[in-house]
Amino acid sequence: MENILYFTVRQNLLRKKNELFEAIKEEEKKVGYYHLPFSNTQKIKVQLQHLNSEIQDIVVIGIGGSSLGAKAVYNFLKPQKSFAKRLFFLESTDPLNIQNLIKQINLEKTHFFIISKSGTTLETIALFKYFFNKCKKEQFSIISELNSPLAKVAKELNASFFEIPKNVGGRFSVLSNVGLVPLAMVGVDIDKLLLGARKIYKSFFEDGYIKDTLLKKALFYAKKHQQFHINVLFAYSESFKYFVQWYIQLWGESLGKRQKHSIFNVGLTPIGLIGPEDQHSFLQLIMEGTRDKTITFLTIKNFMQDLSIPDISFEPLKELDMLNNLSFDTLINLQSQSIKEALLMQEDIPVDEIILENVDEESIGKLIFYYELLTSLVGYLIDVNTYNQPGVELGKKILKEKLKDCK
Amino acid sequence: MENILYFTVRQNLLRKKNELFEAIKEEEKKVGYYHLPFSNTQKIKVQLQHLNSEIQDIVVIGIGGSSLGAKAVYNFLKPQKSFAKRLFFLESTDPLNIQNLIKQINLEKTHFFIISKSGTTLETIALFKYFFNKCKKEQFSIISELNSPLAKVAKELNASFFEIPKNVGGRFSVLSNVGLVPLAMVGVDIDKLLLGARKIYKSFFEDGYIKDTLLKKALFYAKKHQQFHINVLFAYSESFKYFVQWYIQLWGESLGKRQKHSIFNVGLTPIGLIGPEDQHSFLQLIMEGTRDKTITFLTIKNFMQDLSIPDISFEPLKELDMLNNLSFDTLINLQSQSIKEALLMQEDIPVDEIILENVDEESIGKLIFYYELLTSLVGYLIDVNTYNQPGVELGKKILKEKLKDCK
Repeated sequence: MENILYFTVRQNLLRKKNELFEAIKEEEKKVGYYHLPFSNTQKIKVQLQHLNSEIQDIVVIGIGGSSLGAKAVYNFLKPQKSFAKRLFFLESTDPLNIQNLIKQINLEKTHFFIISKSGTTLETIALFKYFFNKCKKEQFSIISELNSPLAKVAKELNASFFEIPKNVGGRFSVLSNVGLVPLAMVGVDIDKLLLGARKIYKSFFEDGYIKDTLLKKALFYAKKHQQFHINVLFAYSESFKYFVQWYIQLWGESLGKRQKHSIFNVGLTPIGLIGPEDQHSFLQLIMEGTRDKTITFLTIKNFMQDLSIPDISFEPLKELDMLNNLSFDTLINLQSQSIKEALLMQEDIPVDEIILENVDEESIGKLIFYYELLTSLVGYLIDVNTYNQPGVELGKKILKEKLKDCK
Repeated sequence: MENILYFTVRQNLLRKKNELFEAIKEEEKKVGYYHLPFSNTQKIKVQLQHLNSEIQDIVVIGIGGSSLGAKAVYNFLKPQKSFAKRLFFLESTDPLNIQNLIKQINLEKTHFFIISKSGTTLETIALFKYFFNKCKKEQFSIISELNSPLAKVAKELNASFFEIPKNVGGRFSVLSNVGLVPLAMVGVDIDKLLLGARKIYKSFFEDGYIKDTLLKKALFYAKKHQQFHINVLFAYSESFKYFVQWYIQLWGESLGKRQKHSIFNVGLTPIGLIGPEDQHSFLQLIMEGTRDKTITFLTIKNFMQDLSIPDISFEPLKELDMLNNLSFDTLINLQSQSIKEALLMQEDIPVDEIILENVDEESIGKLIFYYELLTSLVGYLIDVNTYNQPGVELGKKILKEKLKDCK
């Protein structure tokens, strides 16, 4: 993985690098997600062997941090790998969505992972009950915090149970059992996934190439957040479609907060784009709209696909014959490079680029841990608690009152 | 369709309503999209009858405005309707994506609609060539501007051709042949779609209920754009997943511009969310982040699905038994109402709600035309050319140079 910054960071800001690094080293001792790349995966593998071997479909019932991470990894790898089982995610109480899932799966040969850290997520419990009513109890595994209400239900049902560590927040939990268990179940190489994350961990904490880049980028984003308060991730492959969703949760929910030491509301707004499609949608706003956005290009070096534009010529379209014999992977990379250059010519739009080597587990593991670190760094600098989400409680409270009134 | 505004607009701003309405009435005479709801669909239906009756799959090859509209409508209706044919959209030059499509379709029984207004969209032509090489020429229809290079190719190939009017821009073209032809082909009732749009047209131009609301909302969004420059559409159903993509293009590409009479870069940034999932992702940022966002809730009155949470009780989760026997459509609507109330309690977040009657063609036709009108109104007020996209040209130019260098 490479990360090239095309913006410059002022010298007197760079002097803060050491202080920032020391602060994160302190945080690393207390916050759980930093240690997930070093997890032992043996236990997961052994436990999964005991599940029924005739399972064809896996359904994750979970929402937000309980589904977005595994969904990002699975959908990144899917076009490149053939998996033994199909993986579905049910995140919505939308009845249309539930019906749609039932149409697609073979219900008798499906295994459900019910995932909720608190063990009381309303949507998840509602959906759990719905399918529990239709299936055998052996078809359910539970992933939750130790001793949560849902963990207790697992005991009652004698269901397979996987723990979520208390000090790992939902949106930082993809490399815990939350992501690893369903991913391992369909055949993702979770050791390679963790290896990628570990490489970024080491590169950051042990003075590797990513340390300087991450510190610089975080300092720039935090310092300039009043002007550039929208951070666009422009990913050039359909495979990133759900990765950008994961990024949006991680970034938005971690950094949109009241400051710890003031009454200010602060925040950085994440936007996820997919290229080249969004060149024909959002690019105009970036090029000519208000200068309030940073842009990160995310590209893939080796698509490992041998698909070319055939040597066909239509007379009225002769001008476009320069496309002939070009491979599609060359084309998509030329497209991202062209847009990047066009943005750099504006001079007042901060741009950087992340280049992934391959479409594989190690690459996506790196990218995940890179973004988690970046989030922690910026959160520290803008004085928010990166790991809580107090703003979502009020809506939940109002809903519970409404539900009581329904009775 | 209802639209309830929960923010107040100052009296002296409201005095501008008449001027704004008169300006749009002038624009209506010149800009093509306003008249699309009155299109005659008979011609489309007759022409489509001549296509091969054994077609199973329809693939739209188009990007941006050439695909997002039909994709929004098709995916809105899909969970509710059973269509005779399947509709796919190929918008990307990503080789992984192309491979993935080929796996899903029955290539011999597929018909392709090649859609490009200019007739020279690079991605579209590249993909056209790729599939032209694999299929018979009878499998292709062309949708383009009269006399465009692609229109001339249609003539050369003796292919079925559908015109895109010159004065209808791509992102405003869903109710032209661009959207109507592929949608009619799979069995969408395009007359009902146009009927919905016509009802909003009439309600606006002939002093109906939507006129006052749209004018007020546009005046508020435009006047306050420096503070509230992010406009969040929070849609409570998976069915809106691609509708919000269409909204993002329409809003971002129309309003992100240099002003006509200044050198300022202005723009309003669209964000599309899906509930309830994004309550667990983006909501924290809305509730506690910087006060720079307006929120529009989009909800469905009648889901027409009879799905309920069963009366199952788990002892450790007794507190959530209030969910039992509740229908999922009631639950999702209680969720959106709870979040709306939580936001209203903040007092400094502008909120409104759009309520669609049903999941059907008429409802989505209304919603489309409502957003097109709102875009035109705001574009006029912030002094941009709503209908062009000059900012995307530079990237295209650089790409063409790179392609020449490849040779």
